[in-house]
Amino acid sequence: MPDGLLESIGSPADLKALAVDDLPKLAEDIRRRICDQCARTGGHLAPNLGVVDMTIAMHYVFDFAHDRLLFDVGHQCYAHKLITGRQHLFEKLKKRGGMAGFPDPRESKYDLFTVGHAGTSIPTAVGMARADTLLGQGDRHVVSLIGDASIVNGVAMEGLNNAGTLERQFLVVLNDNGMSIAKPQGAMAQYFDRMRVSPMYGQIKKRAHGVLKRVPGGDRIEDLYHRAGEMLKAAITTGHMFEQFGLLCVGPIDGHDIGTLIQILTEIRDFDRPILLHCKTVKGKGFEYAEGDATKFHSLGPFVVQDCRVETKSGGRSFTSAYADAMNDLMEKDDRIFTITAAMPDGTGVDKIMPKFPDRTLDTGICESHAMDMSAGMARSGLKPFFAVYSTFAQRALDQVFQEIALHALPVRVCMDRAGFVGGDGAVHHGFMDVSMFRVFPKAVLLAPSDEPTLRAGLEFMRRYDEGPSFIRYPRGNVSDTPFSQDVPPFELGKAVLVKPARGASGPDLAILAYGTQVYEAAAAIDELEVQGYDVSLYDARFAKPVDIELIERLIAAGTTILTVEDHTLIGGFGTCVLEACNERRLPTDSVYRMGMPEHWIYHDSRAGQLEQVGLDAAGIARHVRQILDKPTSMPPIRIDVTKARV
Amino acid sequence: MPDGLLESIGSPADLKALAVDDLPKLAEDIRRRICDQCARTGGHLAPNLGVVDMTIAMHYVFDFAHDRLLFDVGHQCYAHKLITGRQHLFEKLKKRGGMAGFPDPRESKYDLFTVGHAGTSIPTAVGMARADTLLGQGDRHVVSLIGDASIVNGVAMEGLNNAGTLERQFLVVLNDNGMSIAKPQGAMAQYFDRMRVSPMYGQIKKRAHGVLKRVPGGDRIEDLYHRAGEMLKAAITTGHMFEQFGLLCVGPIDGHDIGTLIQILTEIRDFDRPILLHCKTVKGKGFEYAEGDATKFHSLGPFVVQDCRVETKSGGRSFTSAYADAMNDLMEKDDRIFTITAAMPDGTGVDKIMPKFPDRTLDTGICESHAMDMSAGMARSGLKPFFAVYSTFAQRALDQVFQEIALHALPVRVCMDRAGFVGGDGAVHHGFMDVSMFRVFPKAVLLAPSDEPTLRAGLEFMRRYDEGPSFIRYPRGNVSDTPFSQDVPPFELGKAVLVKPARGASGPDLAILAYGTQVYEAAAAIDELEVQGYDVSLYDARFAKPVDIELIERLIAAGTTILTVEDHTLIGGFGTCVLEACNERRLPTDSVYRMGMPEHWIYHDSRAGQLEQVGLDAAGIARHVRQILDKPTSMPPIRIDVTKARV
Repeated sequence: MPDGLLESIGSPADLKALAVDDLPKLAEDIRRRICDQCARTGGHLAPNLGVVDMTIAMHYVFDFAHDRLLFDVGHQCYAHKLITGRQHLFEKLKKRGGMAGFPDPRESKYDLFTVGHAGTSIPTAVGMARADTLLGQGDRHVVSLIGDASIVNGVAMEGLNNAGTLERQFLVVLNDNGMSIAKPQGAMAQYFDRMRVSPMYGQIKKRAHGVLKRVPGGDRIEDLYHRAGEMLKAAITTGHMFEQFGLLCVGPIDGHDIGTLIQILTEIRDFDRPILLHCKTVKGKGFEYAEGDATKFHSLGPFVVQDCRVETKSGGRSFTSAYADAMNDLMEKDDRIFTITAAMPDGTGVDKIMPKFPDRTLDTGICESHAMDMSAGMARSGLKPFFAVYSTFAQRALDQVFQEIALHALPVRVCMDRAGFVGGDGAVHHGFMDVSMFRVFPKAVLLAPSDEPTLRAGLEFMRRYDEGPSFIRYPRGNVSDTPFSQDVPPFELGKAVLVKPARGASGPDLAILAYGTQVYEAAAAIDELEVQGYDVSLYDARFAKPVDIELIERLIAAGTTILTVEDHTLIGGFGTCVLEACNERRLPTDSVYRMGMPEHWIYHDSRAGQLEQVGLDAAGIARHVRQILDKPTSMPPIRIDVTKARV
Repeated sequence: MPDGLLESIGSPADLKALAVDDLPKLAEDIRRRICDQCARTGGHLAPNLGVVDMTIAMHYVFDFAHDRLLFDVGHQCYAHKLITGRQHLFEKLKKRGGMAGFPDPRESKYDLFTVGHAGTSIPTAVGMARADTLLGQGDRHVVSLIGDASIVNGVAMEGLNNAGTLERQFLVVLNDNGMSIAKPQGAMAQYFDRMRVSPMYGQIKKRAHGVLKRVPGGDRIEDLYHRAGEMLKAAITTGHMFEQFGLLCVGPIDGHDIGTLIQILTEIRDFDRPILLHCKTVKGKGFEYAEGDATKFHSLGPFVVQDCRVETKSGGRSFTSAYADAMNDLMEKDDRIFTITAAMPDGTGVDKIMPKFPDRTLDTGICESHAMDMSAGMARSGLKPFFAVYSTFAQRALDQVFQEIALHALPVRVCMDRAGFVGGDGAVHHGFMDVSMFRVFPKAVLLAPSDEPTLRAGLEFMRRYDEGPSFIRYPRGNVSDTPFSQDVPPFELGKAVLVKPARGASGPDLAILAYGTQVYEAAAAIDELEVQGYDVSLYDARFAKPVDIELIERLIAAGTTILTVEDHTLIGGFGTCVLEACNERRLPTDSVYRMGMPEHWIYHDSRAGQLEQVGLDAAGIARHVRQILDKPTSMPPIRIDVTKARV
């Protein structure tokens, strides 16, 4: 058990009451607490261990009840949360009712934005800085904490370019750990790699004068120079690449040296121009601690430590693994296939493809927009790019899909993992809108597998489909151990497949058209319903665009009630595709019902818990079917009133 | 009339046959041709005049039938098109059947991508470079031509960061004219501004050796150095900001000196590492030519020359102007309002707000993602941000709307000009998907004015609505001279307004629910229909989210056929909102019909021509209404077959 130093910290005020010399001990407590907790529940272990010292120093120097602290990506906020009165929530990290894995304004006033997508802390901070100044609150310091992998994301660089024009305090703390989620990618990562921690108190102060000339508002150089403290002058860097963005660049300094961090931050705090403080954190620093207590660390839970991430062993075969194996086979067969990931090689399974096809795989780093456009360029040159990306991150490349891909009907294949509810990562990571977002494009095809055999068949379909882009979605979680069939029929454009026929000769009471893995939830629901005497058939829809309108027409002609089921928002999802197609063909939709995600945010919980919350589990689907079928009539009463009234 | 040098150029081969000394004459011909044409039809005059010399030089040195030339934004492609066999199309610039204003692969093999949104040329070029090499076509040179305003767009910087890792030929030609669309914004613009054209053949060659060490694959430094030509060595720049992206930076050189451009490009052409050639083009260079022939220039057409853009006088009052005036009044009334534009001050009308409110307006430059996030930060701090942006460019900030705005229900106001068909700019600029894209977000409100009084009322509604983001859309074009009313009722959340009642006491044959300015097209259609004996009522829907479901329910209850009309894709548009709301309430939709943009791209034409093409003009709407009402029954025959068949 920790000795109680962390437990004594109820708020940042308690932290500020400690002597600087006590802070490393607090850091050690926090690290231990994070390791213990992550071992039990999983979590972003390494990123959080890396910023413990910087977080303590920032809270020591700033007052974030009033000042603004913006996290980037946000998966490094545990220390911050432990310091800001949320230790009691930590035991249920990422579970319903427990602590969110990302900053969350619902939890605390110390969290300004829920984030999980990279690069946004700088632009939002620019907005807050401008607004605070305008509203007479310019005394609120603004600090953005961002990693080296995030700062090269497009929106971060746009933000830096705009931050450089601010004429007020603005601090970007760059946490350069040289590792990011996977290995760093791109030229700038190599640049960071070359930078070494500055020799402090060296003979470099004379440079400061020259550098300050380049700070925006340079007509007040002399004034700025005299206001810069000795420590700051000593640490100013010349020729740092972000200097060209108009920021005064300081460091790199050691991001684990709390005493120096506090000294520098204190001098920087009130400097009235944008500053970038470059902190080097040692790769694996967090793990060193854990390794020093290796026995305890390894015995705490069902851990696998892989690169810098800690993944709980799920004990099953994930869609991600199934995807990797399927792609390996496809790439073996078709040497024009090229697989791309944007900083998610492990999350998307691309890491399992890379060793065999080093020349036909690429990790672009965190830059989904670039990766999508690069895919377009590859398709234009005749390759068959498969871009493996989380559904939620595909949102970042919508405009590239529009302009470079859809407008040219280029056959880029987008493979969206983490579609639907994602569990503990919560609202910021659900893949809830990929159908709605991509179905607007002419010639785009949207499909979803329900299990491993259909995943393979779907990918094979995509390999051959070259009339436009194709988008496949599959969830976080495992493929079914017992698929309906190991040998499924090939995907045929816009064709659904019957997986569970009606029992009675007169046809089913209701037909479920399920999109994606909801097929299996629906099948379980039907098992329950059959016992209760209902006769329900089940189709694996396979395609959201185009939908199987011939099937739907036959069902409607037969008077069969239809229920669409999907792990996607009801707004513009698969069910809506069905409604639109019916309307186009002038088919009545009185007997078409839709189930999907509701129109409100669903927060962190297990994926099963999230499906249950919104009734998309087997029990919820069965309940909904009974509600539909137990009505005296599926025709609404309003229908009967045909008197023409003046409206 | 030109003397025929341009007319003799049927393809780049003809260009290559000229002596270098003849090229300035050709450039003059091209400039004259561009000026003449733009005067007649309008067009992106200044951007095109600026790159004439560079375009000639590039075609002289490269063979773009085989090599890859990628334009960024693409509004600077006229000289390129004139050189590549399309002079005959130029007379109908941006008109149906004539030359597209942007690169267009449908016109020529020399155009690789249709573009109009900034920053994408580098990432697509990276994709083509990688693919060409992989496919054994590494001898295809890859060249991206990009302006100084575009290169700081996020996706361009992501692309540069990735380009820096290429170990093959890759050339970025930076057209630095220091002007972009409006004035350049951000710190990097200031940086570019400080750079001066390099003194060629100076004593700076010795630097080259050192710089080459920083090129990727630096283990072959000596080899690289010896392969660099004298001209290249002389022009290499040290400390250029893009050097940190891993590119060898050359220049700035004079982008109008064709001879030097050809010499440098020739030496650069086969250099097997990524190079950025920084060319300075003189601001207003094109206008100097025009000014030298000022009489002719001014007499050619209904021109207004404003900043660097040439806008044809439309002779009416645009939505843009109406927006600017309305915002001026709102900002007068409410000092928390802050208006933002992303490099489109004139296009959005923000330039007319800036003079009065310099502290509460901001042009961020071309970075819609940053601008959206900055707006979120401002809303978080208590301001009321209004982000004025073209609908098509709002696509670039979808993920920011998701994460920073919608997830926090922040009241950011997004004002989307150029919604619907945009006319001559064509498919790459239509605002065709803003409803579909933004309606997925909880608490988001989507609205549209039909004329100036409703625009004002809608903006006032947005000012007060603070439960989430709001999105208003209005088209390129004029407000109605004769609005239904000057004094319209305030916008009430989710309430439509009856603008044209049925004539008969028994109610209308059909009710049109029109979203946005389609109200006026529908009204004109009704005028025609009334003469023909049809009784059609008309509602201004005002809201796409939420739709006026009570009204729809009343109409359906009364047996009234409904037709939704919108200048937006039918996929997930206003009509779909109606279908979903009906389905949610179990209302039948047999008698709900929808009109909107079809599922294929509509290319350059006048806006009126585009509306006519897809039947969204008055005549088309009237035709559609007659088709609906003249049917023997609006109930599809299939409906009658209620026999349960096994499906």
